[in-house]
Amino acid sequence: MINAVGRDIPEEIIKATGMQPFKGSFARNGEEYKKAAPTVRPRIDPTESKLVDSIADVLKKCGIRDGMTLSFHHHFRNGDKVVNMVMEEVHKMGIKDITICASSLGSAHAPLVPMMEDGTITNIQSSGVRGAIGEAISNGKLKGLAIMRSHGGRVRAIESGDVHIDIAFIGAPTCDEYGNMRANGGKSDCGVLSYAYVDAQYADKVVAVTDTLVPFPNLPASISQVNVDYVVEVDEIGDPAKIATGAAKPTTDVRKLMMAKYTTDVVVNTPWFKNGFVYQTGVGGASIASTKYLGEIMRERGIKMGLGLGGIAGPMCNLLEEGLIEKLVDTQDFDLTAIHSVATNPNHFEITGSEYANPMNKGAYVNRLDYVILASLEVDVNFNCNVVVGSDGVISGAQGGHPDTAAGAKCTIVITPLLQGRIPAICDECTAITTPGETVDIVVTDYGIAINPRRQDLIDCLKKTKLPIYKIEELRDMAYAITGKPEKVQFGDRVVGVIESRDGTIMDVVRQIKPYEWD
Amino acid sequence: MINAVGRDIPEEIIKATGMQPFKGSFARNGEEYKKAAPTVRPRIDPTESKLVDSIADVLKKCGIRDGMTLSFHHHFRNGDKVVNMVMEEVHKMGIKDITICASSLGSAHAPLVPMMEDGTITNIQSSGVRGAIGEAISNGKLKGLAIMRSHGGRVRAIESGDVHIDIAFIGAPTCDEYGNMRANGGKSDCGVLSYAYVDAQYADKVVAVTDTLVPFPNLPASISQVNVDYVVEVDEIGDPAKIATGAAKPTTDVRKLMMAKYTTDVVVNTPWFKNGFVYQTGVGGASIASTKYLGEIMRERGIKMGLGLGGIAGPMCNLLEEGLIEKLVDTQDFDLTAIHSVATNPNHFEITGSEYANPMNKGAYVNRLDYVILASLEVDVNFNCNVVVGSDGVISGAQGGHPDTAAGAKCTIVITPLLQGRIPAICDECTAITTPGETVDIVVTDYGIAINPRRQDLIDCLKKTKLPIYKIEELRDMAYAITGKPEKVQFGDRVVGVIESRDGTIMDVVRQIKPYEWD
Repeated sequence: MINAVGRDIPEEIIKATGMQPFKGSFARNGEEYKKAAPTVRPRIDPTESKLVDSIADVLKKCGIRDGMTLSFHHHFRNGDKVVNMVMEEVHKMGIKDITICASSLGSAHAPLVPMMEDGTITNIQSSGVRGAIGEAISNGKLKGLAIMRSHGGRVRAIESGDVHIDIAFIGAPTCDEYGNMRANGGKSDCGVLSYAYVDAQYADKVVAVTDTLVPFPNLPASISQVNVDYVVEVDEIGDPAKIATGAAKPTTDVRKLMMAKYTTDVVVNTPWFKNGFVYQTGVGGASIASTKYLGEIMRERGIKMGLGLGGIAGPMCNLLEEGLIEKLVDTQDFDLTAIHSVATNPNHFEITGSEYANPMNKGAYVNRLDYVILASLEVDVNFNCNVVVGSDGVISGAQGGHPDTAAGAKCTIVITPLLQGRIPAICDECTAITTPGETVDIVVTDYGIAINPRRQDLIDCLKKTKLPIYKIEELRDMAYAITGKPEKVQFGDRVVGVIESRDGTIMDVVRQIKPYEWD
Repeated sequence: MINAVGRDIPEEIIKATGMQPFKGSFARNGEEYKKAAPTVRPRIDPTESKLVDSIADVLKKCGIRDGMTLSFHHHFRNGDKVVNMVMEEVHKMGIKDITICASSLGSAHAPLVPMMEDGTITNIQSSGVRGAIGEAISNGKLKGLAIMRSHGGRVRAIESGDVHIDIAFIGAPTCDEYGNMRANGGKSDCGVLSYAYVDAQYADKVVAVTDTLVPFPNLPASISQVNVDYVVEVDEIGDPAKIATGAAKPTTDVRKLMMAKYTTDVVVNTPWFKNGFVYQTGVGGASIASTKYLGEIMRERGIKMGLGLGGIAGPMCNLLEEGLIEKLVDTQDFDLTAIHSVATNPNHFEITGSEYANPMNKGAYVNRLDYVILASLEVDVNFNCNVVVGSDGVISGAQGGHPDTAAGAKCTIVITPLLQGRIPAICDECTAITTPGETVDIVVTDYGIAINPRRQDLIDCLKKTKLPIYKIEELRDMAYAITGKPEKVQFGDRVVGVIESRDGTIMDVVRQIKPYEWD
């Protein structure tokens, strides 16, 4: 069945998953549904302790068995030790057929690959699967399906009951003996625990895993004791050097600086750039450079950002400190500056993943965005974006908040160099679609920008500027003129992954790769 | 059927309500259950506004109809204007058979009485019903049943689905247009919105009612936008003069000062009085005086309270400011000092009603109490307490956190003068039971104290002190010697109210009063 972004979704996948093909970004607006709920064990007896000696013991107490769904968060990023620590014990116990439901997985989790091969792990649900796990999935090593969800889409899936978490393992930089968790004050600070909040609310069993047990009560708690069954103290939940980076060096790449300049020119020449505007940006070189340019213009014109949101890095915190941003709401910290800021600046707030981006709650922060600055691996001539599947066909990225913020923002700007290496980033058809073009307004490349023809208002604003504006087909032609029209990636038949739309429908499927064959 | 506190629960009430008789304070510990969940309408479309012009309009948008359950919080106490404002519109529309599910109701809500009489309101669920509503219920004016719940019990009832809220109306001192509510910064500050949190999570429709609309985002929000459907701005949500009192004058009543002294002597002579102890107290004259005495001894001995919790009044905030208390967690503010403190002192935290006292979550703050100091209208010789029904048989009090904290604390101290006016407070049998004696450890009267024989550890500690320790039967005898043995209140047959145990079972029933008849 052809969905609303023109992708052919195989009937057998629709049947196997019970999911509908994507019908449009706002098709489910107002569609009432009953939320899911966990089965919980109350603790009325005040003398009961939550402390458990080891991961193995807590798995037994939680009744670990074949076929369960275990969840994890990714706030420790590439420094995470919790996923592997838990899964090693599960593996040792000989448990099979586990579904991993993680907010994201990365290169730290390569040790899961052998567990995929031996049937310990048979399904993976994640924002993305970078590194060895992505390769393994694309090579057909997972018995079941990988479901790739946006950050908002994951909350929706859990809150709606599309996925039910049996046991949530929440790595906590600090935790007290009654389960109050914070992301600050320990050996492996990660700033916020935003993405784990929904796990704590909806999992039947919730386990806090910490390497820094602190006195009760650990306040203000990101995750509250009332949702926590057990607390396990371990040696190390993370590798601080890999959780957060230091300050990013400003880029000197001329192409990136040019894209940053174009991006800022778009922002400052559109009507939402005024006192109190709401803004989100990423952590790529061009995004960070554009934040710097934007700050300069804000200073010049005396314009303040009312709110910055999403994953946060140092440059936004610096503008907050300077008073050019009034408030930040934060779901993920990319560097030490951000981790420090959220712990100390009273105008820098942690929010939950649902508050950030869940499309099926009563109104998420992304709905309030004036601007979002995103990156993309590929953008097709219908402005559809791909941030999950490499142009070689291998799963290597993550949806993150990409489709969430694109749908919410009044002006969605996607930055991509015209060529990613020797591959055209502007193309006839993306290798896969993660973000529908109807929610993408402007594409910024190093060769010029293209405005979605659906947005005549933006065309009218920007045609008065000196920005090099092209039709997106013209940008594609420029790219193809340099590299030639790229050959399509050749996939096998088996579907190994589903790219889920934030509303729970199927945006696209990902098939097993096969070695390139000459015609 | 006779329940675990010896009360005869009529079969027809067990049948009509589907509730079980009380089986003991910890009988349901570990009894797994599936939580309830609301049916929600998602707001994916970022252009939708939540602002609605009037209470009447929002009732229509929420689909108000006969038989619905509407919920309210009581943080505005006797200054509340929200309940009456909403119910007047409901009444005008001719809607019938409404269940009011409030965290509490008080004298401000006398205008509901005619609505009980004409069938607009047929059921009331509340912590308590002081004033005219209590009298009306006791006089049989409510067609259905009044269910009186503790603060923790109300959260449990909502979370377990025993009551399903169709529309929650949440009065918010400040709110932004997207529904982020705070209890500070407006015309009718109430400090915290703790008891309304569960309403926002579990009601199908959630309406913010505010008189102070502030710029988005109103942070840190007590109630988040993600759970709010509509925002209505009205002239006045409360009468500030009646929401909070000024500083309470220290009592000069010699009996109260004596009870305060006994209470403090109990605390400081028991083993939990050491650095880091966890404590809750009330706002009666004796409680406040005992906080003052306790502070003096803490200063002398260099002992700090780790945590104070519950409803908070000025004296506890003063100890926090002084550094004698490390942290306060707060569910209700009784005076202006407390409202100011929670807004400004970084060690004074708002917690939810569930965090405070819900017996059926994974561990509430009450479970961590070392001491709780409570008051009671009556205490029987089995240490059972009554805080809801006056000795004249009329519903005139509220459970509040009484049974919750009693069950959680290591040492539960109940203060009551031996005689309440001319009525013995220590008696053979309470007019009604709200708090089971198995959770009450020490009764402090102006004539001496009694220790529950279940607590040999406390008897051993305190017999070494100069405290005037009696058997509770001796205290009863002293009371009866002064007033004579009181006549039992004469009730009619009809059950008008259920005193629900915090775990959802029936602690007691309340019958319609009838005019006194001479034998």
